[in-house]
Amino acid sequence: MYVIAVYDVAAERTPKMLKLCRRYLHWVQNSVFEGEISEVRLKELIGEAKEIMDESHDSFILFKNRHKHWLDKQLVGKALSETDQFL
Amino acid sequence: MYVIAVYDVAAERTPKMLKLCRRYLHWVQNSVFEGEISEVRLKELIGEAKEIMDESHDSFILFKNRHKHWLDKQLVGKALSETDQFL
Repeated sequence: MYVIAVYDVAAERTPKMLKLCRRYLHWVQNSVFEGEISEVRLKELIGEAKEIMDESHDSFILFKNRHKHWLDKQLVGKALSETDQFL
Repeated sequence: MYVIAVYDVAAERTPKMLKLCRRYLHWVQNSVFEGEISEVRLKELIGEAKEIMDESHDSFILFKNRHKHWLDKQLVGKALSETDQFL
């Protein structure tokens, strides 16, 4: 399936969440990721995210699409730069 | 169509972008919004966003789905609270 994932976590947990999400998905903006992922890998991602998160404070939302085909993306403004991608 | 919108703008432009997006969509997380919107209203939203944004620095991404039906949402952690909703 095709997933869009967005997190909002406390600053001290941001580097860990960023690193985690980048292992599973493509980084498209600040705290936004997208990509094709299997049910099994998605469960792994969520499991690892829960270990990092404080669920009473942080949030992680996953929008799941059965097929990328049904999704159209439009970017206004600046894309993540090459430099950002290698941070 | 059903849209997920995420912005990443400089702090001084955040209040304006938040206010704008909330006029068109439902606020679901920090800088994340979703909702059913017509092509015409979406063009209006993008036009108004461009007036607020510095396109060489900020970004605004719109993921468009033909039908909400194809989209499944999973929340891990904390939803936006009632208090946040009235900010």
